[in-house]
Amino acid sequence: MLDICLEQENPLSWPLQIYRQIRIAIIGGHLRDGDSLPSAKELARHLAVSEDSVGAAYEWMSTEGLLECRINAPARIRTGVREVHRTRQPVVPLGFWADLPKPPLRLNAAPEYDFRAGVPDTRIFPMDTWLRLLAEQMTTMPPQLLIYEDPRGRADLRREIAVRLHRSRELQVRATDVLVTNGSQQAVHLAARVLLRPGDRVAVENPGYPPPRQMFTSLGAEPVGVRVDSEGLVVDEIPDDCRLVYVTPAHQFPLGMPMSLRRKLDLLAWARRRSAVIVEDDYDTELKFTERPLEPLHSLCPDGQVIYVGSFSKVLLPMLRLGFLVAPPELMPALAKAKYLTDVGTPSVEQAALARFLAEGGFADHLRGLHEEYGARRGLLIDILARDFGDVLTLVPSEAGLHVTARAEYDMWPLVQAARRAGIWLYSLGDFTDPPNFAHGLLFGYGAMRAEAIESGLRKLREIFHQKGRK
Amino acid sequence: MLDICLEQENPLSWPLQIYRQIRIAIIGGHLRDGDSLPSAKELARHLAVSEDSVGAAYEWMSTEGLLECRINAPARIRTGVREVHRTRQPVVPLGFWADLPKPPLRLNAAPEYDFRAGVPDTRIFPMDTWLRLLAEQMTTMPPQLLIYEDPRGRADLRREIAVRLHRSRELQVRATDVLVTNGSQQAVHLAARVLLRPGDRVAVENPGYPPPRQMFTSLGAEPVGVRVDSEGLVVDEIPDDCRLVYVTPAHQFPLGMPMSLRRKLDLLAWARRRSAVIVEDDYDTELKFTERPLEPLHSLCPDGQVIYVGSFSKVLLPMLRLGFLVAPPELMPALAKAKYLTDVGTPSVEQAALARFLAEGGFADHLRGLHEEYGARRGLLIDILARDFGDVLTLVPSEAGLHVTARAEYDMWPLVQAARRAGIWLYSLGDFTDPPNFAHGLLFGYGAMRAEAIESGLRKLREIFHQKGRK
Repeated sequence: MLDICLEQENPLSWPLQIYRQIRIAIIGGHLRDGDSLPSAKELARHLAVSEDSVGAAYEWMSTEGLLECRINAPARIRTGVREVHRTRQPVVPLGFWADLPKPPLRLNAAPEYDFRAGVPDTRIFPMDTWLRLLAEQMTTMPPQLLIYEDPRGRADLRREIAVRLHRSRELQVRATDVLVTNGSQQAVHLAARVLLRPGDRVAVENPGYPPPRQMFTSLGAEPVGVRVDSEGLVVDEIPDDCRLVYVTPAHQFPLGMPMSLRRKLDLLAWARRRSAVIVEDDYDTELKFTERPLEPLHSLCPDGQVIYVGSFSKVLLPMLRLGFLVAPPELMPALAKAKYLTDVGTPSVEQAALARFLAEGGFADHLRGLHEEYGARRGLLIDILARDFGDVLTLVPSEAGLHVTARAEYDMWPLVQAARRAGIWLYSLGDFTDPPNFAHGLLFGYGAMRAEAIESGLRKLREIFHQKGRK
Repeated sequence: MLDICLEQENPLSWPLQIYRQIRIAIIGGHLRDGDSLPSAKELARHLAVSEDSVGAAYEWMSTEGLLECRINAPARIRTGVREVHRTRQPVVPLGFWADLPKPPLRLNAAPEYDFRAGVPDTRIFPMDTWLRLLAEQMTTMPPQLLIYEDPRGRADLRREIAVRLHRSRELQVRATDVLVTNGSQQAVHLAARVLLRPGDRVAVENPGYPPPRQMFTSLGAEPVGVRVDSEGLVVDEIPDDCRLVYVTPAHQFPLGMPMSLRRKLDLLAWARRRSAVIVEDDYDTELKFTERPLEPLHSLCPDGQVIYVGSFSKVLLPMLRLGFLVAPPELMPALAKAKYLTDVGTPSVEQAALARFLAEGGFADHLRGLHEEYGARRGLLIDILARDFGDVLTLVPSEAGLHVTARAEYDMWPLVQAARRAGIWLYSLGDFTDPPNFAHGLLFGYGAMRAEAIESGLRKLREIFHQKGRK
């Protein structure tokens, strides 16, 4: 007799339990093609359930193509399934994925002193306003927009971004030049997807921001690190065959200095000669602490060659994942398709809320507050670094963003490790160079800490320097 | 004298206006290398501004590497920038992007009768609960989680999804097997990114869901349409060299019938023999209208070979963009890297809200309500189709989801066009076949319309059939 055992306490119905156990017996090889099953009546009596319960299970088996039922004959297993190799074939990802580094570890708790570059102050985020805007937009949005939006993003947000870029960054763009993304990394990814073939070479800054570089590798392209000097990327050293150049001209990551206008003009001329595309990541220039114009490459070459990438991660919250790109019209249809095929679109309610925030002027007010607060922290940080760390560190001049970088005479990694053990979280310049540690220095973010924390954190760091540093 | 014209009503400061006009003159070729500028004193007198204003502009020009200033000599333009080719090089995307179809048009207004497949009822969405959960999570979330989350998604959400999958779909999975995505398309995209090389062949259903197929093409892979019969994908016709198979076994899109268990076992055996990966898109099976188990392929082969993809688009809202995948452990590190390099991570507050909604039981309650409502609409729709359209349409049996499909004897496209003009929005089966229209039929979604609308919509459609249809 078929070995079936029904459980009273099992939430599955009798038919489902019977069906499930026959299925397991077939998959496990205990029931094979040609084996006959007892009649529904017999099995029902044996299991002390109704004949209907067994009948339902048999019917499902038959519907599933696993049971042959004939009148006046026992039902027979008839799968026709060819032999399954029982040994499991491990599924392996493409080889290069193993070589790419793991994503950075998320911290389970905020460090006592958080000098990480690019981390904004979540306490300054206008939480109440944002929640009000979300609720307003969600409850008033026409139903069809809660289904699927334009993959390029909402028209109102794209318009507000275009207006904002004109005001703050001298960009001459229309709403149709803007595509909303889930943060700036996605913007760079989309640009790469529509432009790069496996084997294509891509110039990246060295030192530079690792995720785009790794992403290029993950697409089979070949990133080439190009040296950076005090004026920014050394254009003369870009290999001729690069199809794309990824740069951070306004606030070079990680060093912090802006690219000089001369170098920008040189880079644009290079790109025109080579028919290459420049991806300009303007990730934190909404926070500019100088009157000196840090013209985006895009503003110098509005009619092509430059894809401009921006983000709300630094001025709002990283985890909103709201960013955008500005691209020449001939790339936009391909970028819209790439966005659609990658993730259909960016969540619409959040887009609508951001559009309102920009339109109502709340964003501009918020930004004024950020400027004042971050400007004060930045000034304090720079003063203390000059006063107390001048023997070891030399500040790289910068004019924008959420961090400053200082060069050092020797490897900072042992100090960084000691600092982390003491609750001070900061990056070494060597974290962003290829090969690692070819340049010595430290990054000091001032986004996540109030003035008092900057003071006491640097005091504590100074002590660690005394204990650990080469004297 | 240098041609500079200051504007009183321009919001830019005098130094910025002066700087900007010199810059424009250089870029425009009106000032060339070696040209000298008037002294700051002279220019200041000429423009009737202070000498400091001109001095600041000159200093910026010098900082930007465009001006050579020497004592007792006029400042000279000195850019060193090589000639820029003025003719613009158009930037072109890779060729195949032009061949891919445009994303489907977003409707500007909801159609009067919306029979589109896969469109849920936004009015059933528990808006108040969702907004409460968002507000709770956002205001109580530890600051570091508003910065960057684990790219695989929040641990609490992954745990809740694993529990839910066990309960509703018999999946034996742990939280670490789950990766949260921005909807199911992104899940399929990530799978493709870690597994497919350009030129790899991918089996897709024909008829089938177009976006994954197009996405495979956009990665340089080669999708191969495989025939679907009443038991689902015809496994015998999958080309031997396919590295990946994309299927919708529980509710084949667009036809609607489930894949038979026999066929599932056959497909799994095929994948084991060929070391291929199956991507199982279980996009709407939370809405199952039968006791018959529609076992996911993953539940039959829990130890590898299957990547299971799910989505909350149909049971919550598409525009939340919340989905997930379940993958074998050996693929998870590569998938996490791919997610990180693609868009860093899915917004965390929405993840936290969904985790609470699942944990609090609100989701299960909501789902019960959906079952009742959609079940009633589905029953009504099927009854009317059988009663009033039996002469033209033959229903494909299905057991789940948000739409039913009916086969027809002749091409439905002219009828679909006439219906759309009359405010009835529905898809033709030919929209999802390759070549287009090789199969005749219609899809009837019942997600977006209440019972009365279904009745009057079908009545109106019947009239159009009378006018337009072959009699």
